[in-house]
Amino acid sequence: MTAFEPGSADYERRTRDSFARQAAMRLIGAEMTSVEPGRVEIALPFSEQVTQQHGFIHAGITSAIADTAGGFAAFTLFPPDVSVLTAEYKINLLAPATGPRLVAVGEVLKPGRTLTTCEVAVYNEAADGRRKLCAKVLQTLARVGPRPDIGEAG
Amino acid sequence: MTAFEPGSADYERRTRDSFARQAAMRLIGAEMTSVEPGRVEIALPFSEQVTQQHGFIHAGITSAIADTAGGFAAFTLFPPDVSVLTAEYKINLLAPATGPRLVAVGEVLKPGRTLTTCEVAVYNEAADGRRKLCAKVLQTLARVGPRPDIGEAG
Amino acid sequence: MTAFEPGSADYERRTRDSFARQAAMRLIGAEMTSVEPGRVEIALPFSEQVTQQHGFIHAGITSAIADTAGGFAAFTLFPPDVSVLTAEYKINLLAPATGPRLVAVGEVLKPGRTLTTCEVAVYNEAADGRRKLCAKVLQTLARVGPRPDIGEAG
Amino acid sequence: MTAFEPGSADYERRTRDSFARQAAMRLIGAEMTSVEPGRVEIALPFSEQVTQQHGFIHAGITSAIADTAGGFAAFTLFPPDVSVLTAEYKINLLAPATGPRLVAVGEVLKPGRTLTTCEVAVYNEAADGRRKLCAKVLQTLARVGPRPDIGEAG
Repeated sequence: MTAFEPGSADYERRTRDSFARQAAMRLIGAEMTSVEPGRVEIALPFSEQVTQQHGFIHAGITSAIADTAGGFAAFTLFPPDVSVLTAEYKINLLAPATGPRLVAVGEVLKPGRTLTTCEVAVYNEAADGRRKLCAKVLQTLARVGPRPDIGEAG
Repeated sequence: MTAFEPGSADYERRTRDSFARQAAMRLIGAEMTSVEPGRVEIALPFSEQVTQQHGFIHAGITSAIADTAGGFAAFTLFPPDVSVLTAEYKINLLAPATGPRLVAVGEVLKPGRTLTTCEVAVYNEAADGRRKLCAKVLQTLARVGPRPDIGEAG
Repeated sequence: MTAFEPGSADYERRTRDSFARQAAMRLIGAEMTSVEPGRVEIALPFSEQVTQQHGFIHAGITSAIADTAGGFAAFTLFPPDVSVLTAEYKINLLAPATGPRLVAVGEVLKPGRTLTTCEVAVYNEAADGRRKLCAKVLQTLARVGPRPDIGEAG
Repeated sequence: MTAFEPGSADYERRTRDSFARQAAMRLIGAEMTSVEPGRVEIALPFSEQVTQQHGFIHAGITSAIADTAGGFAAFTLFPPDVSVLTAEYKINLLAPATGPRLVAVGEVLKPGRTLTTCEVAVYNEAADGRRKLCAKVLQTLARVGPRPDIGEAG
């Protein structure tokens, strides 16, 4: 992996603050567990409320944390006056998402002036920290002009 | 659109029952609003709890109802003894998901013995029922052997 | 379908000229058979030279005409001083590509200032003109600054 | 990377023979340069005949070698009586494909009884062997029943 230049000196605080304003991540119980330039981890403890009919974590919820991990990985490289939007992504679901903790690791593959491409790996993480791949994502993020976050001074 | 043969006489009840066992859909507030052979609609009223940092519905939540609409569209064509799993999908986000109601329309493009391909359109629906496209999905579903739903006799 | 405004008065000539400079399309034997604002068709007569090991048209060749149809569909809407690049696409292969003619129909789903999203349907077309769907594509195109085509005055 | 068990003792010969029957790969000038269990490389020397209008290798041609590398990576793990078909793939184009040699490295992410998931990295390779990433692919392959290759005893 290439080492990336963060987009600002306080990229970590900016990234964590923006994540904290994602109500949807609070609703499902996701946490931002690691923030580095071009790399972000989002973790989701298994809970019955995010499951589908077979008792696994719903593919849409797996997607939600994967999309978030990749989006904020790109965001760490952006200058302070711009925001990030997901243009598209594709996910392959390789194994049932059973937890006990689901961890999405988003990494920038190719930063760009308008488009940034990320890949995300999602793992079932055991209590001892061992990870097994359960999904893989390729994602395209667009850099958009200043767009105030909810609750932020515009 | 081709007319599809439903997978069983009571495909609608089976589809609605299986959806009702998706805790994740209850959590976000999604409803199954239409079930026909090869075509399912899932609706999500806008609520603050499913938003991202700019106040739009989170792309992961949009994905979750799209994945569900496509998955159950395939499921309507399956015989009673099999279940459905999403193998992969790709979503293009075309406009912010603002509601007031988000509606995902999943349709079978190509049914198959092992793989079924669906496409899903997601719309922002106004109070008067007018719909504007906000996302488009291509999805591959796998037919899997009997796998009891949660709470079902195995 | 929405009716789209072409990007210039001579969009058709510009589009056909740019296609004519794609050596790869000449190599495989593809033709541009229709050009409208936001919609382009590329046809490929079956020939042994574009097949894979089972005697069907190679998925990569099917992809090549699909990518081209979508890319030029976007290009018809662009002003004269910009060019088009494919950022990404996803293809679902639904049936063997057998011909006798393979036709890719690219259509703009959502035009944009930096990104344009297209979908492409690829059909096996019989001698009597009847079409059967064999592949479906979702594609993201980027508008890039002036980049002279090969053989064009820069 | 996990070490994979090859699908048969003569997996390499079977894989190279099947590739040799892909007329489309001959047409564009691609070679199979490496075959290991779950990993295959396809190389394409730059030539004017595979370019698009800006003089880069056509995205469809890049896709064609990527699809082939992933498909045969899966094939190396299959038993002798089955064949491989691409169900779908998604490609992100990260940099112009300029060569002088384009190399697609296909690797199995997750082998399966019916579906195998691969990822493919495509590189511009310099004369000194240095590689720069120019495209990334996620791909789903289906295992299909015995289907004689062209020119093979059925």
